[in-house]
Amino acid sequence: MLALDNLRVILVSPRNPLNIGAAARAMHNFGFRHLRLVDPYDVAYQEARSAVHAGHLLRDAQVYKTLPPALEDCSLVVGTTALNKRDLHHTVRRLEHGGDLLREQLASNTAALLFGSEKFGLSNEDMSYCDWLLTIGSEDSMNLGQAVAVCLYELTRREPARAPEEKRLVKVGDLQRLEGLTIRVLSEAGYVHSPDIELKVRRLLHRLHLEAHDAAVWMGMFRQILWKLKQK
Amino acid sequence: MLALDNLRVILVSPRNPLNIGAAARAMHNFGFRHLRLVDPYDVAYQEARSAVHAGHLLRDAQVYKTLPPALEDCSLVVGTTALNKRDLHHTVRRLEHGGDLLREQLASNTAALLFGSEKFGLSNEDMSYCDWLLTIGSEDSMNLGQAVAVCLYELTRREPARAPEEKRLVKVGDLQRLEGLTIRVLSEAGYVHSPDIELKVRRLLHRLHLEAHDAAVWMGMFRQILWKLKQK
Repeated sequence: MLALDNLRVILVSPRNPLNIGAAARAMHNFGFRHLRLVDPYDVAYQEARSAVHAGHLLRDAQVYKTLPPALEDCSLVVGTTALNKRDLHHTVRRLEHGGDLLREQLASNTAALLFGSEKFGLSNEDMSYCDWLLTIGSEDSMNLGQAVAVCLYELTRREPARAPEEKRLVKVGDLQRLEGLTIRVLSEAGYVHSPDIELKVRRLLHRLHLEAHDAAVWMGMFRQILWKLKQK
Repeated sequence: MLALDNLRVILVSPRNPLNIGAAARAMHNFGFRHLRLVDPYDVAYQEARSAVHAGHLLRDAQVYKTLPPALEDCSLVVGTTALNKRDLHHTVRRLEHGGDLLREQLASNTAALLFGSEKFGLSNEDMSYCDWLLTIGSEDSMNLGQAVAVCLYELTRREPARAPEEKRLVKVGDLQRLEGLTIRVLSEAGYVHSPDIELKVRRLLHRLHLEAHDAAVWMGMFRQILWKLKQK
């Protein structure tokens, strides 16, 4: 299981209050709680905190002047970087792969996920504290709020292997009733009655993969049509 | 393969120029090109278009007064919705599952992905044009720009099944040289020379899973240490 509380999202030198707010909102959306700001532009931080929708997450954010103390309780430090800013000193992992690794670590360890400033990303010095780097793999660097959202989505993403089928499909009994009704309607309507009409209609109806409530609606409509046809 | 050009991202009644810009930026980042706006708040649209960083994508965006003409060339229409706004008329799929389905369709069909206004999401009427709905599965509704980014990330996400190992690990030959050097250093330093020291050092070094360039750095450091030890 993912221990969401083990992640510290750290924004290094953020400059835009909207981005700080968007990062906090994404964290809330995906269930993360620990936000840290390193050397934020003070006006931006105060503006973000006082915004109407600023949640407790932003109000409880911890602020540091430099990066090292913000990392003190973390066992793993992962930086984020744009794909085009490859760094030879670190292993750079695409989010799809690195996300798995980070998720595994979070099960039993605290980890920091670092995002650099909107303009320059993480500095070489910031990166020197990182165990490895994560890249989203988009063409350019992303908007900070979007980058945070995409990373946290990946961390909480459930594997689609055993996707539940959300459709409540019609039961065969109901489908048979619909089939009978359809044939009566076609018959009343003077539709050419070929010898294998029942087979044709059955296959047609099965291919629709009707949901239960849709089948009920069709039944109602066909009953009405049948009633009308018989009036003639 | 994913045919990125088959997707039309459609923003219905967007109100905030920053969100329109962020959506366009996310599309550009993930390689999508066709943006459509339905009934945008005109001031917002003009402001977004005239922004410094507005790319060709936003300038080429098509604008419609109502939704139906914006859907005309699409074979599949998928709406997005917040998890808490469940809709009984549609199949609602989590992004992890629905993304796969949409990706499959895009290989051979045009599809529309609809995002509602920041405040209200898609209306019931908007949804009536949808084949099914996609939900990101976060706690609350997301910021529009972030929602677009997360959806497009999922659509272009590569499966991590066969993750390449980005590390370029040291070759055994270099590791053996490092091993020999380490033992000479330990020996010169007067480290207790147990009979199985070579085995111990070898296992120690192998457990490090050194990268090639790191091994070179260690070699240099140990050479310097050895030189210094021999000066004594």
